[in-house]
Amino acid sequence: MKVEMSNKAHGMVFSKSGVPMKAQEFPFSRLKESELLVKIKYATICGSDLHTYRGLRKTPVPTILGHEIIGSIETLPHGNPIKDYYGDDLKVGDSITWSIAASCGDCHYCKINIPQKCRNLFKYGHEQITEHHPLSGGYAEYCHLAKGTTIIKIPDHIPYKVIGPANCATATTAAAFRIGGDCSGKVVIIQGAGMLGLTACVMAKYLGASEIIAIDIDEKRLSLAHKFGATKTLLFANDSDKIVNDVQKITNGYKADLIIEMSGISKSVELGFNLLSIGGHYVLVGSVFTQPTVEISPETTVRSLFNIHGIHNYAPQDLAMAIRFLADSHMKYPFESLISSEFSLKEVNEAFDYSIATKSFRVAVRPNY
Amino acid sequence: MKVEMSNKAHGMVFSKSGVPMKAQEFPFSRLKESELLVKIKYATICGSDLHTYRGLRKTPVPTILGHEIIGSIETLPHGNPIKDYYGDDLKVGDSITWSIAASCGDCHYCKINIPQKCRNLFKYGHEQITEHHPLSGGYAEYCHLAKGTTIIKIPDHIPYKVIGPANCATATTAAAFRIGGDCSGKVVIIQGAGMLGLTACVMAKYLGASEIIAIDIDEKRLSLAHKFGATKTLLFANDSDKIVNDVQKITNGYKADLIIEMSGISKSVELGFNLLSIGGHYVLVGSVFTQPTVEISPETTVRSLFNIHGIHNYAPQDLAMAIRFLADSHMKYPFESLISSEFSLKEVNEAFDYSIATKSFRVAVRPNY
Repeated sequence: MKVEMSNKAHGMVFSKSGVPMKAQEFPFSRLKESELLVKIKYATICGSDLHTYRGLRKTPVPTILGHEIIGSIETLPHGNPIKDYYGDDLKVGDSITWSIAASCGDCHYCKINIPQKCRNLFKYGHEQITEHHPLSGGYAEYCHLAKGTTIIKIPDHIPYKVIGPANCATATTAAAFRIGGDCSGKVVIIQGAGMLGLTACVMAKYLGASEIIAIDIDEKRLSLAHKFGATKTLLFANDSDKIVNDVQKITNGYKADLIIEMSGISKSVELGFNLLSIGGHYVLVGSVFTQPTVEISPETTVRSLFNIHGIHNYAPQDLAMAIRFLADSHMKYPFESLISSEFSLKEVNEAFDYSIATKSFRVAVRPNY
Repeated sequence: MKVEMSNKAHGMVFSKSGVPMKAQEFPFSRLKESELLVKIKYATICGSDLHTYRGLRKTPVPTILGHEIIGSIETLPHGNPIKDYYGDDLKVGDSITWSIAASCGDCHYCKINIPQKCRNLFKYGHEQITEHHPLSGGYAEYCHLAKGTTIIKIPDHIPYKVIGPANCATATTAAAFRIGGDCSGKVVIIQGAGMLGLTACVMAKYLGASEIIAIDIDEKRLSLAHKFGATKTLLFANDSDKIVNDVQKITNGYKADLIIEMSGISKSVELGFNLLSIGGHYVLVGSVFTQPTVEISPETTVRSLFNIHGIHNYAPQDLAMAIRFLADSHMKYPFESLISSEFSLKEVNEAFDYSIATKSFRVAVRPNY
């Protein structure tokens, strides 16, 4: 059943911090091979969207923000079928999400499985509007997917509120666990109990961690962490020694096998080094904004056989893992509660302001409600 | 053919820095299950032996120093056969080397394949002399191997000068490459062209690296690095910017996929962070002595997907790899030239003084020459 469609779509155009995003109508472009048009069902507001909106992060303008998106396929190009991540043909009407960026598959970084650093990256919600490709962000009625996008069908039984942030928050969390290695039977610490941190608590449980310790500066977030699988929570009030002692008590002196740092705050990063076990893995995820440098001891790093990893965005397999993870575990945890409110497309500025004012985990925009 | 033996052996006892090691005779202890007695053929002087000798590193005393050792099996205990790393029975007369430490196999660290941090570690060349176990170091006629030691037979065709440092320098280098991941077809930088650094140049070649860049502060060492497989050498004279530019030129801007830091100097560690590619692995090995802390940028670590690892000593598989590596590659590289002189057991103090005065890569002691 094909719904009647116009050949134009509205998008909310961001031009500058401080200036409200403004509705503009764009004609649909002719789809090239491996491109497709998606009718957007749901787009959540990520922390990095807020940073751009507030002028804390640069992006080429004019642009349509929003990269945590789900939708249904509206139009496929003539010619070769387009396949999803698993190699199955996609068809009109399929509910999908897709990688935060399209990558070329041919460059150095694509070949070493870091497609998120592709030399020809096309990143949804971060691209300047062009004549061929105006619709590249989530706060619009439609999104035009580029060649090299990883596409995954989303199971019908997962609510939009759960699957909405999958292609950014959940997939990045999956990448952190991939880089951090097997955590089955291990002690995992999650620093920062925001959207990613809470997701990480559930994922640690899903991957078999025996102990999941959430650390945050906010008691409310920590009480929520318990509902998301944390077995212990520790309030961090710049009292590193106390946290170190607590972790040593919980772990019989061994400290944590895997730590995932989601806050990005240097004081938290410094703390993490004191919580890591011999041979442990420390994955930095949150440090995507400027913060003071952190001092490390090369001797401790060597003698304690530390492994420290940075992860930024993710690779296709992480998105696939994220969708499986949400399909398997969303019934058991209150993921839906993390979306505090939903707005229509034309209310997108209000949605951003609401998100900032309420410090929401996520606020959603429903362009075709 | 069993050679007639006495039931006593000489060892050179270290009691204090500044006091010459002194010959002392020890009776052989009764071998317990899984212990064996080795007649020492060759023992090299490692940098950490020199540190202890010079008072820069603490060790329990009295002790017999020396942990880079090869020998032949003199006595096996009654009862169950003792097996080598590959599961083959050992017999009297076998030429062997063994792990720098014996580990229990049961503790937390043994179970996570970090036996070098075993809670019940027995480390050759680092143990206080006890009544049951006086002979635990290399500068003695015999060495008494403890239960939990990884033993590897050494092929007859490898000269002592080559295989001597295998169980410390070569095996630690092998551990660094294991932790750093596959380097086939990749750009590898080796920082510090000492014994380990030169070994690492050959090992990078052996493992298929396409470009091997050695960096050192000493031109002579760098010219030697060329003979050990380095494809490029860069002299580091505290001019980090120049080195960064040079590495960018060599690598078309991508920098190094794998860097192994063997010098332990913080300025070198800092430099390394500026030479690492996106997604690259940086393995710290040399930092086993106190040096200033190093500042890292969490944001760069995240956005560049850096992986930073510390490695201290090694696991059994690294020793096995080290022996295979030397067997396969020693004919092609001047490993023998790294042993600048050989001394008898009673000349061990002269050997140490010579090693320090000449800044030799290695000096050898031949207890049963």
